[in-house]
Amino acid sequence: MQYHVDGALVDADAATVSVADRGFRYGDAAFETLRAYGGTVFRWDDHAARLRDTLDALGFERYPDAADLRGRVAETLAANDLDDAYVRVSVTRGAQSGKLTPGPADPTVVVVTKPLSRGGTDGDDVWDAPASARVVETRRVPDAAIPAAAKTHNYLNGVLARNELDGEDEALMCDVDGHLAEGATSNVFWVSDGTLRTPTLDGDVLPGVTRRVVLELAEREGVDIETGTYDPDALRRADEAFLTNTTWELRPLVDVDGTALPVGPLTERLAGRFDALVESTHY
Amino acid sequence: MQYHVDGALVDADAATVSVADRGFRYGDAAFETLRAYGGTVFRWDDHAARLRDTLDALGFERYPDAADLRGRVAETLAANDLDDAYVRVSVTRGAQSGKLTPGPADPTVVVVTKPLSRGGTDGDDVWDAPASARVVETRRVPDAAIPAAAKTHNYLNGVLARNELDGEDEALMCDVDGHLAEGATSNVFWVSDGTLRTPTLDGDVLPGVTRRVVLELAEREGVDIETGTYDPDALRRADEAFLTNTTWELRPLVDVDGTALPVGPLTERLAGRFDALVESTHY
Repeated sequence: MQYHVDGALVDADAATVSVADRGFRYGDAAFETLRAYGGTVFRWDDHAARLRDTLDALGFERYPDAADLRGRVAETLAANDLDDAYVRVSVTRGAQSGKLTPGPADPTVVVVTKPLSRGGTDGDDVWDAPASARVVETRRVPDAAIPAAAKTHNYLNGVLARNELDGEDEALMCDVDGHLAEGATSNVFWVSDGTLRTPTLDGDVLPGVTRRVVLELAEREGVDIETGTYDPDALRRADEAFLTNTTWELRPLVDVDGTALPVGPLTERLAGRFDALVESTHY
Repeated sequence: MQYHVDGALVDADAATVSVADRGFRYGDAAFETLRAYGGTVFRWDDHAARLRDTLDALGFERYPDAADLRGRVAETLAANDLDDAYVRVSVTRGAQSGKLTPGPADPTVVVVTKPLSRGGTDGDDVWDAPASARVVETRRVPDAAIPAAAKTHNYLNGVLARNELDGEDEALMCDVDGHLAEGATSNVFWVSDGTLRTPTLDGDVLPGVTRRVVLELAEREGVDIETGTYDPDALRRADEAFLTNTTWELRPLVDVDGTALPVGPLTERLAGRFDALVESTHY
């Protein structure tokens, strides 16, 4: 496998960043997780826009434009002869002197890929299998501390949430006020009273690309949708539920804190529409 | 300059970590900033204990013991012929597959040093000069999201706070409830009504080693001390104030949000006691 580091393809074993890189010292970096289907990155424009938003939130004065980044992703996929793949793109503020106050950004760009077949059988997980989750004690970092819409290398909040698990697949976090926010790496949806519900982006919720696609598909299907502020009990009492992220797509959620939920009809319908969208190549 | 990376001394230019290292991917790492005076690390035991607390908070099942780490620091200082130095020790969870849920820790240890003379004239700052500060909008990450006592590579909260500054030296953060917590890289003290005050560790405050030393020195001096929960106005109305951290030691704070404060008598007395402690080598 070859990765793309600071402008060049290098063997994965030799893919490194300086210990002086702020991406290492402080997690001072933005990233996106992408998925390529048949060589094309799904919803590239949405991911590129969110990456730009993160970089702006972190105050990077300059960074490679979307076309540049897309080229690096394409080069990495081609070098590894990958059509169906997981891709991670990171943009750090670069190597600087040891002061916390940033100097002008001199970004380091890292592109990592690995095979991830359409069916999601990369060998270390079956993404499409239904998921279990637990509502954990760790609270989601509030927007007032780090912008909720920023996807950064400061991911310890999610690591700590996952550390609380006892074999479940996902850790669901509430915000500091006790409202359900999101999973460590996913957004959460559920259905009750025939309405599809998910926490609003007005709260401490990452604007997931798959979340957005699902809301678009549901609207096109004429599904009643409500985005709002909910207690975790709303999820536990749901008729059906699912998680979304780029690698999981729509993943049925069948166990919340030990309460069983069925794989419901709306989950199956929206998962089918998502699969059809992926097959269409009109992302 | 040579750094110590994963068990070996390497030239600073070649000091790198894998892009698969969780310290890079997620900021999944603990660190300590140390200061060596005359070849001896100041308050090593306190730093080693806090590092261990951080590693435990992050759920590392294993990591090098304090003697091992102290040996790496000593080797790095010796290799660079440094007696008076800044030292940064980082312990990451190591390189793992791309899943957020951690596997067993396989720590990467990085030791970085640079000359920092006793007087604090390392060429890029005059640490002993009085500081200005601003109370910023960015709120301190709450303990419920990431343990406040953990000193980790997730340092974007401080970066974002510093980004708000307009030339001031330090960004002071309040907690999510609006109480004064700490600076991006420092603890804050002030004097009012003859009492030395600083935010309590019951709040979202890093237990600074220099903070602790200052409280010990003040107690020995018979100074009235109060640790509590304060609005930022308490600092603005203070008679004198100072910041503490390992590299700044005690740094007089003479400007808060544009309000001037004098370099006060208790600040000077405690700074003198701190200097005497450093000279004593009885840390």
